[in-house]
Amino acid sequence: MDLPRARAHGTVTQRLIDDHLLSGRMEPGEEIALRVDQTLTQDATGTLVMQELEALALDRVRTEASVQYVDHNILQADERNAEDHLFLRSAARRFGLWFSKPGNGVSHPTHMHHFGAPGKTLAGSDSHTCAAGSLGMLAIGTGGLEVALAMAGRPLHLTMPEVWGIRLTGELPPWVSAKDVILELLRRHGVQGGVHRVLEYHGPGLASLTAMDRHVIANMGAELGATTTVFPSDGAVRGFLDGVGRGDDFVGITAEEDASYDLDEEIDLSSLEPLIARPTSPGNVVPVREAAGEPIAQAVIGSSANPGFRDFAVPAAMVAGRQIPAGVSFDVNPTSREILQDLTRRGATFDLIAAGARIHQSGCLGCIGMGQAPATGSNSLRTFPRNFPGRSGTADDAVWLCSPETATASALTGAIADPRDWAERVSAAAPPTPEAPDPPSNNDAMLEPPLPPDEAARVQLVRGPNISALPELDPLPDCIHGPVLLKAGDDVSTDEISPAGAAALPYRSNIPKLAGFTLIRLDPDYPRRAEAVREDTGHLIVAGANYGQGSSREHAAIAPRYLGLRAVIAKSYARIHWQNLVNFGVLPLEFEDPADYDRIGPDDRLHVSGLHEALAPGGEPTLRVRNATRDEEYTVRHRLSPRQREAVLAGGIIPALAH
Amino acid sequence: MDLPRARAHGTVTQRLIDDHLLSGRMEPGEEIALRVDQTLTQDATGTLVMQELEALALDRVRTEASVQYVDHNILQADERNAEDHLFLRSAARRFGLWFSKPGNGVSHPTHMHHFGAPGKTLAGSDSHTCAAGSLGMLAIGTGGLEVALAMAGRPLHLTMPEVWGIRLTGELPPWVSAKDVILELLRRHGVQGGVHRVLEYHGPGLASLTAMDRHVIANMGAELGATTTVFPSDGAVRGFLDGVGRGDDFVGITAEEDASYDLDEEIDLSSLEPLIARPTSPGNVVPVREAAGEPIAQAVIGSSANPGFRDFAVPAAMVAGRQIPAGVSFDVNPTSREILQDLTRRGATFDLIAAGARIHQSGCLGCIGMGQAPATGSNSLRTFPRNFPGRSGTADDAVWLCSPETATASALTGAIADPRDWAERVSAAAPPTPEAPDPPSNNDAMLEPPLPPDEAARVQLVRGPNISALPELDPLPDCIHGPVLLKAGDDVSTDEISPAGAAALPYRSNIPKLAGFTLIRLDPDYPRRAEAVREDTGHLIVAGANYGQGSSREHAAIAPRYLGLRAVIAKSYARIHWQNLVNFGVLPLEFEDPADYDRIGPDDRLHVSGLHEALAPGGEPTLRVRNATRDEEYTVRHRLSPRQREAVLAGGIIPALAH
Repeated sequence: MDLPRARAHGTVTQRLIDDHLLSGRMEPGEEIALRVDQTLTQDATGTLVMQELEALALDRVRTEASVQYVDHNILQADERNAEDHLFLRSAARRFGLWFSKPGNGVSHPTHMHHFGAPGKTLAGSDSHTCAAGSLGMLAIGTGGLEVALAMAGRPLHLTMPEVWGIRLTGELPPWVSAKDVILELLRRHGVQGGVHRVLEYHGPGLASLTAMDRHVIANMGAELGATTTVFPSDGAVRGFLDGVGRGDDFVGITAEEDASYDLDEEIDLSSLEPLIARPTSPGNVVPVREAAGEPIAQAVIGSSANPGFRDFAVPAAMVAGRQIPAGVSFDVNPTSREILQDLTRRGATFDLIAAGARIHQSGCLGCIGMGQAPATGSNSLRTFPRNFPGRSGTADDAVWLCSPETATASALTGAIADPRDWAERVSAAAPPTPEAPDPPSNNDAMLEPPLPPDEAARVQLVRGPNISALPELDPLPDCIHGPVLLKAGDDVSTDEISPAGAAALPYRSNIPKLAGFTLIRLDPDYPRRAEAVREDTGHLIVAGANYGQGSSREHAAIAPRYLGLRAVIAKSYARIHWQNLVNFGVLPLEFEDPADYDRIGPDDRLHVSGLHEALAPGGEPTLRVRNATRDEEYTVRHRLSPRQREAVLAGGIIPALAH
Repeated sequence: MDLPRARAHGTVTQRLIDDHLLSGRMEPGEEIALRVDQTLTQDATGTLVMQELEALALDRVRTEASVQYVDHNILQADERNAEDHLFLRSAARRFGLWFSKPGNGVSHPTHMHHFGAPGKTLAGSDSHTCAAGSLGMLAIGTGGLEVALAMAGRPLHLTMPEVWGIRLTGELPPWVSAKDVILELLRRHGVQGGVHRVLEYHGPGLASLTAMDRHVIANMGAELGATTTVFPSDGAVRGFLDGVGRGDDFVGITAEEDASYDLDEEIDLSSLEPLIARPTSPGNVVPVREAAGEPIAQAVIGSSANPGFRDFAVPAAMVAGRQIPAGVSFDVNPTSREILQDLTRRGATFDLIAAGARIHQSGCLGCIGMGQAPATGSNSLRTFPRNFPGRSGTADDAVWLCSPETATASALTGAIADPRDWAERVSAAAPPTPEAPDPPSNNDAMLEPPLPPDEAARVQLVRGPNISALPELDPLPDCIHGPVLLKAGDDVSTDEISPAGAAALPYRSNIPKLAGFTLIRLDPDYPRRAEAVREDTGHLIVAGANYGQGSSREHAAIAPRYLGLRAVIAKSYARIHWQNLVNFGVLPLEFEDPADYDRIGPDDRLHVSGLHEALAPGGEPTLRVRNATRDEEYTVRHRLSPRQREAVLAGGIIPALAH
């Protein structure tokens, strides 16, 4: 990875970083440490974070605001989800967090509504934390342990990214909306296009995008692998904060007049058309018209990628007085109860119900594979951010990603339809422009504030029978030798490494149980084979580019580590997963020559020795790997900072801190 | 079972039976055969029913209306539920049924709204089918195969019940509602109190009960084990039918002036108070005040047992402007989308959301263990009809059954509360009396009508990979000898025999897979032990009284039969399960002397021989069972009609019909 020489200056990103920089140089590729103002955890990652706070012996969070949301595991097929909720609430009360009840809403829009503030940093154990960039925040999705450390007042470490200036001009045409902007960027650059970059939007096109439109765009920056997305804090942000009753939190932050970026991109909004990502990657983007006519069995609106009032109100206006055909399930996932209040006040909820929509509770639901799984091979259109294979809960799924307009036009048609063509068919010349209540509903009754410290200190954690403690992690041996138990391709997602879905998610608090689901999408036998050599040698994984894209779940590092994974050798890594591997003591190595990837076969036995010396201060970042099966050698390298070297040597961050 | 001599005459029940009698004498205890006008199937039982229609080689249903609902398995944790829905829709189109889409609503209130008609018979593969008795119908919940046969134009067989006249006087006091009426009957008579009886309501107290109030009362007649419940068709029914736009379907049907009943009961409505069924039986009823103060973690309103507008609108008025406390989840399960439309029109939906309720899609949900499972040992108050152990999805659950008023007052209090006491605390003297829209919403767009015959004949069934065919059933051997693999107590429910819930329900279309869940609540090892002797001897089950109460699911007969169950010896049976055993070729025997139950131990080896002669026409209904382990003998008897003897000998109804 040869990064160009930094030349960005005067950007919003740099200002936000500079304001929070505790150590490191703001040069792309350098490790920097930032002060964290706010944290966000959700339930799927949060139960481990709370166990980490225990392991760190934290008394009370040191951030300005830390919020524990419950939005992922809210189906409650058995007692485990409800017990997680009780555990999380007790931990929030114990450690001084805010607690957002199940049913209150998806973390990202709820956080934006109640806590988002320009100029602040936010660390979140959810990869879509970047959505808060819509308000001029520096919001970073990361592994849970990083968030736990941030709560404990420690800095957040990351690799200084390049700043990618994306200049917007023009205005969106009718029936094209914010989702199409980010789909256009994915169409151009794919799921690796933003790696080691911050996407910073600027230009005259911003004027026509509301804060919630920007949320849509910022949210799915995660799908390009970006470190985060940043919008300036301007009039749209002021208007949003005024609306939610927090006008005092407004601070204007815009790029300097002569700002320049490490890379430049331009999108003429007026040139965009409705786009759709084909199964099974957010990067498979084509114009909707190219896919038009494909029959569909399901359309779902909602999720953190289209969470705003208009993302439901426009569909409601489209279906008003019409009916969803018999063969299509039209599912509506309200993103927060405040949005649902506003939709109900405006009559949109009624229109959706009357047209045949299934109105679900507020939360992530199908977006994280909790329900709404489609039938094998049937097309499902969703306004969600991701369509990785199997993420829906259906092994052989066919999930497409699109705007609310496209999802609704297609639901009404029974087949994929460009909303412009649908509008022509039904003689609806102009798209609806529903008006949100002003001010919007403000209802913080399901957000429980932190307890006062003396009361908090007396709270006992409520630990149900399914909530385990973190596994013990042993130090890195000087020599790793073991079989390659998996040879993975490019763009393997953390959904494939540690699946979500209704079967696995309830075990999010129980690593030994969860480990049995590790990598089974790629090899159902992986957990058993890993278990077989766990005590003996452990094992390695070889992977292609962008290994570990997608969700921030650190389970994707801890679970294979628990099964004896000691090192991964990949062409490249997704940012968060790479950090998570380090944090839990797995050595992430990269091929010096990517062609060596092709020389290693599954089950080859690899040897890497001299690790202690190589990871010592001043050690060389390159290592030799011997393939005993083929009698060959390859050069690999690591990109660990001195801090990270210590962590990997100790077996992970927690044992390193215990030293 | 010695039934008293029939003396009922002039009752609504007798008129309904007489109008549909095809054979048999209307003497309690005699087998009668009835013409069936309508059928109702839901998805959890319906996939097997559709496979049975295939096995019967049916071309098109012969009823006036047959409706396939999808209300049970609508969470869709993986592809199996959605594939069941596609299969059911294709079967509905193929065989000439109406199809009610997922999200349209719970079968019973939806059927009442769109199809319920006084004077008609209804056979339904759901034990709460009896709810339709609210409109002066004879509505019988039964095993799926009975419903399949009814669709095929064959008669429904049942044992002529006694008619239990329940005279209502007075009017319900403030804060007491219909649910408390049926809870009072359960308090008096328990879960076996209605066995072999029809509960027929009459008297001046009826005047103050709406058709939907009667639905509440009729629904939970199932919990007393009753054959069904019957209300007269009077002005309240006319008003209901006028409201839903089907005034032409009204026929007045009331008992004759001098009607008399086999048994008599009286309930003075004005003397009732709020009641609650403690865990874990609908029969454990006590006044709410006896349980007041118990902390709760969840309250759920909705389900077929409290499905009407007022059952949500009263809670909405109670919570309006208030907040559910942080430690309580308040879940709202709208029973149909029409009810949700009306609640939304009236502002009730808004009030519920604003107070912190979780609004779920329309369907059965937690009532059938699909989601909403509480944490271990935490109290959950529900307006549902059943709280059998584990039915919620949580093994060690604590579910209480009560009225919407009690559930809501308790949710607001955070502890079990009598709504009268809550009202006094908040200075609300009178209960709210919300007015439903008049006329109510009528929206049949999610009810797909039957296809014309020529089009239907061309429909192919859509059979996903998880939908199996019915297992082959072999004839009854002349001699059963095998071990007693389970000795069960009294009141074992079909929830314990073949559990619902998110783990098992998706296998409802796949008997070999589902069999692995059989009886695991009572003995996790039962499926393995049964499998071990399946090919060799098969096995027997010994049980106490009321074996197989609750849900009508025939899986509770087919799955153990598949595992080699040949006979059950019990003190007594719940009606539907007894029929289901016969229908699938399991011999249901009863102890002549109930004390013999105590003489048999688990794993004792029993021998019953001479079965072919005993079940031949004219054979004696008593048999001798030899206990080889203890060297003892017991006398047992069967209650099979000649038709049923043939069925059991052949291995079940389907092989009997194939002869």
